[in-house]
Amino acid sequence: MTNGQVWPKPRLQHSYDQYLKLKPDNFHFQVTGYSCDILDIQLKRYKRMLFLKAINNNEYLNSLSMNFTNEPMKMLNVLLLNPCEDYPSLNMDEKYEISINDTNGILLANSIWGILRGLETFSQLVTLDKDGSTFVIRCTSITDYPKFSHRGFLLDTSRHFYPVKSILDTLDAMSYSKLNVFHWHIVDDHSFPFQSRAFPNLSKKGAYGHSAIYTINDVKLIIEHAKILGIRVIPEFDTPGHASSWRLGGIPSLLINCSNNIDPNNFGPIDPTVQENYDFIRTLFTEVGEVFKDQYLHLGGDEVVTACWSNDKRVQAFMQNNNISNITELESYYFKNIFNITRTLETVPIVWEEVFDENIRLDPNVVVQIWKNDFNETLQKVLESGHPVLLSSCWYLNYIQYGANWMNYYSCDPSNTTTNRSDLILGGEACMWSEFVDDTNVLPFSWPSGCAVAEVLWSHVLNKTEAAARLEEHVCRMKRRGIPARPANGPNYCSY
Amino acid sequence: MTNGQVWPKPRLQHSYDQYLKLKPDNFHFQVTGYSCDILDIQLKRYKRMLFLKAINNNEYLNSLSMNFTNEPMKMLNVLLLNPCEDYPSLNMDEKYEISINDTNGILLANSIWGILRGLETFSQLVTLDKDGSTFVIRCTSITDYPKFSHRGFLLDTSRHFYPVKSILDTLDAMSYSKLNVFHWHIVDDHSFPFQSRAFPNLSKKGAYGHSAIYTINDVKLIIEHAKILGIRVIPEFDTPGHASSWRLGGIPSLLINCSNNIDPNNFGPIDPTVQENYDFIRTLFTEVGEVFKDQYLHLGGDEVVTACWSNDKRVQAFMQNNNISNITELESYYFKNIFNITRTLETVPIVWEEVFDENIRLDPNVVVQIWKNDFNETLQKVLESGHPVLLSSCWYLNYIQYGANWMNYYSCDPSNTTTNRSDLILGGEACMWSEFVDDTNVLPFSWPSGCAVAEVLWSHVLNKTEAAARLEEHVCRMKRRGIPARPANGPNYCSY
Repeated sequence: MTNGQVWPKPRLQHSYDQYLKLKPDNFHFQVTGYSCDILDIQLKRYKRMLFLKAINNNEYLNSLSMNFTNEPMKMLNVLLLNPCEDYPSLNMDEKYEISINDTNGILLANSIWGILRGLETFSQLVTLDKDGSTFVIRCTSITDYPKFSHRGFLLDTSRHFYPVKSILDTLDAMSYSKLNVFHWHIVDDHSFPFQSRAFPNLSKKGAYGHSAIYTINDVKLIIEHAKILGIRVIPEFDTPGHASSWRLGGIPSLLINCSNNIDPNNFGPIDPTVQENYDFIRTLFTEVGEVFKDQYLHLGGDEVVTACWSNDKRVQAFMQNNNISNITELESYYFKNIFNITRTLETVPIVWEEVFDENIRLDPNVVVQIWKNDFNETLQKVLESGHPVLLSSCWYLNYIQYGANWMNYYSCDPSNTTTNRSDLILGGEACMWSEFVDDTNVLPFSWPSGCAVAEVLWSHVLNKTEAAARLEEHVCRMKRRGIPARPANGPNYCSY
Repeated sequence: MTNGQVWPKPRLQHSYDQYLKLKPDNFHFQVTGYSCDILDIQLKRYKRMLFLKAINNNEYLNSLSMNFTNEPMKMLNVLLLNPCEDYPSLNMDEKYEISINDTNGILLANSIWGILRGLETFSQLVTLDKDGSTFVIRCTSITDYPKFSHRGFLLDTSRHFYPVKSILDTLDAMSYSKLNVFHWHIVDDHSFPFQSRAFPNLSKKGAYGHSAIYTINDVKLIIEHAKILGIRVIPEFDTPGHASSWRLGGIPSLLINCSNNIDPNNFGPIDPTVQENYDFIRTLFTEVGEVFKDQYLHLGGDEVVTACWSNDKRVQAFMQNNNISNITELESYYFKNIFNITRTLETVPIVWEEVFDENIRLDPNVVVQIWKNDFNETLQKVLESGHPVLLSSCWYLNYIQYGANWMNYYSCDPSNTTTNRSDLILGGEACMWSEFVDDTNVLPFSWPSGCAVAEVLWSHVLNKTEAAARLEEHVCRMKRRGIPARPANGPNYCSY
C-alpha cells in the first residue's frame, strides 16, 4: 500500500525527498485569486477531509522515514485565475498545477474545475505518519490534466430506486477519482421516478411508489451537489423503447398497444406515427432541458423491440401513406422528429450505438455511446463517420466477478484504438445497471471498480502493478471518507 | 413477491381464508409456560420487529383481499414447556408449533430454541395491508422443525478484520433465516485478532492493528448475542498450517523456519516435533474452551504446506528417531497430539476434509467438513467411515457472481446423497471467506445468498420457482430490519 499517492495518477509529478508536517489547527487555505461559492464550500470540505482518521489508537502505520522541514506547512495558496463558471461542461478546463516546497504551497488553475481537481489531489498527498497523529505531505510538484474530457458513471435508477443519499454518495465517490459526468439513467421500463412539472402523472403512476420519486427538489439537490464537485449531470430519457413505465402517466396514444390473447397487457415502444406523441416529448424535453443544466441529453435508442410496430395495422398504413418502406426507416423517421426537438432546444443528443448501427440520419454533433461487446469495429465505424464517441462496453460494473475485478476494467483503454480521429473519442462511462443492484450494494459493487475506469480515462500512463498498491491506499481513503469501497486486491488492513 | 410467507419454508403449514388485524399498541405476547432472560429479550425484540415500516407514505401495497375477523389479534400465547437451557447445542430442540385462528394464537415448543424459531416465523407471518397502516396475519397452523441440526455460516475475520457490529449484524441476519451455527474462522495466516488472556502477545503482535482485535469482552458480547438468537459459536483455530500470524506472539519454537536466501522470512506450519508447542496449544485451547461455550471446536487442518517439514534437518532426524516414515505419518502424529488435547478438554473436534483424506487416525466422533468441489466421492467416503459430516463445497458465498446467485446455492442439497447413513450428515455451512470481503460488502455479499443455504438445510421440500417470490419478500423484510440484502431476482421495489 502506498502512502500519500494520488488516484488517478497525475500527468506529471515530481516528488522531493523532503516532508512537511500539517497540523489540523494550524493549517488553512489562502484564496489569492478569484473565488465563489463553489470554492468556499470545497475549501471547508477539504479542510475536513485532509485530517480524517477512521481509527484512533493505531500503531501499525508505516514509517515514512522522512526528512522533515523545520516549519510545518501552514497554508496552501489557492490561486484561481478566472471567475468561476456556473456549471461544468464538456469543455471545462480541469488542468491544475500544484507545487509544495519547504517555503511555499500553491495550487493554481485557470478554472474552478481545475481548482477542484487540484484540491482532490492535494488532499490525497496528505497522509498520516506512523505516530498516528502527525499528518504529513511530501514536497511535490504536479502538472495535471485529463486524457479524456468525458469521464462518466451511469446509474440506472429505474430497475431499482435509489434514495437521494445513495446518489449523493455516488457523486462524492466519483469526485474522489475525478470522474466528471453523472449519466443519470433516470427512467426505463420498470419505473419512472422523475417528477415532471408538466406531466406529474408520469411519476405518480409510473414510479414504484410514492416514496420512489425524485421530486423537483431532489433533482435540484442532486444537480447542485454534482455541480460543486465539478460533475455534470446528463439525464437519459430512453425512447422509443425502454419506455413501458411512461404509459400510465403519459398520454393515451404514447405506446403501441401490442396486447394479444396471451399477453393482454403488452405495450411496445412509443408510437412513431402519432404527432401528439412528439408534442408530448417536446414539452417533456423542454422541461428536462430547464431542470438539467447540461447541454447534452441522452436519448437512449437502444434495444427497440420493433415487432409491435411492424405488426400494427395502423402503423403499416402510416408507413404506406408516408413512403416509409421498412422498420429501420420508421425508426429513422422517429429520430428525425426527436432530433428536430433537441435541435430547437439547442441540446446535443447522445444515443446508444443502435441508433448509429441502423443508419439513422444523425447530425454531425450527435454523440454515439458504444455498449456492446467486441466494440472495436463499431468504434472504428463511428470514428470514420465523424461522430464523437463514448465507450462503455468494457465497463459494466454491475457484472460483478470474484476477485480483483478492477484489473479487467483497467485493461480496457480506448486510447489504444488505431485512428487518426482520436479527437472524437470524448471518453467513456462506467455503467451501473440496476437489475441486481440497489442501495444495499451499489457502493461496494461500484468501488473501487469505478476508480479503475476513472484512471484509464484520466491518466496517460497505465501500469497495473504500480496501480494496485496505489488503489489499495485509495480504497482506504474512500473508506475514511465514508464510501464503503470493497477490497481491491486481497487481504489487507486500513491502518487509519 | 409473496405476502406474509415464511423463509425458510416450514415443514407443515396450513393457511385458512381468514385474516386478523394486529395493532401495534394493542398486541402483546403472553408467556404461559416457562420463561427466562432469553425469552424476555426476544419478546421485546420481536414486538418491535413485528411492526416495522421502512417507508411511510406508500400506496403501492398489494391488497390482500381479506376476510377479516371482527376482533383484532390481541395476543400470542407463548408456551415454553421446559426450562430454558443456557446455551444452544448441536442437539437443541428447534421444533415449534404455531396456531393462529380467529379466537386464539399460540406458539408452543419444548425448548427455548424452538420458541425462538417460532417467534421468527410468527414475525414473518405478519404483513402490512394495502392501506399502509394495518398489520395483518393470516389464520395459519404450522408444525415446523429443521431437516439438519447444524446450519452454519462461516466468517473469516483474519484476511480482513470486521468490527464487532458487522458480526452482530451477521448473527441477526442468520437468525432471520434460522441459521444456528456461527463458525468463526477467527484467525489465519493474515492476522490473529483473538485476544488470549494466556498469550496476549498473539493478538498484540499478530493482529492487523490495535483496533483490529476482538477483546475478551468483544468475544463475550458476540457469544451472548448469538446465544439469545439460538446460535452456537464455534471458533476455528486452524493448525498446523494457516498459522503464520501466530508466530510473533506465540512461542519461539512454534513455526518451522523455512527461510532461505530468496525468502528470508518464511515460516511454515507449526513444528510437530516440539513438545512445548503442544503445551502451548493445550493452554490456548483450554482458554478457548472456557471462553466459547460450545462443545465443538474447529481444528482446521486444511492446506498444510508440508515442504517446510520435509526439508528440515531436525524434523528429518525426529522422524527417524520416532519411526515416522513419511510426512503423512508426521501429520498424523501432530493430530494425535492435538486430539489428545481436545479429548482431555472434552471438546469434539471438527476438521477440514484434508485431515480425513490423509488417513489420519480420527476418533469416531470427529466431524469432517467438506469444502472441495466435486464433493460426492468424499462425502460417500466420510459417511462410509462413520464420521459425522458437514458440507460447504457448494456454498462459498464469497465467490460472488452476477445475477440471481442464490439459485446456485439453492440447487445443492446434501439430502440428495444416496446413503444409508444420512443420519451422519449434520448439515452444512455457507462460507464467507474474506480475501475480497470486509465490512464494506459482507452483508450484501452474504444475503440473500445465505438464505438459500438456510432453506436447503431447514426445509424438507425445495422448489426454486416457489422460493423465488418468497425470497423476494424475505429480502424486503431483511432490509426493513436493517440488513442490506441485495436484490434476489431482478428489478423490484420493497413496498414497505
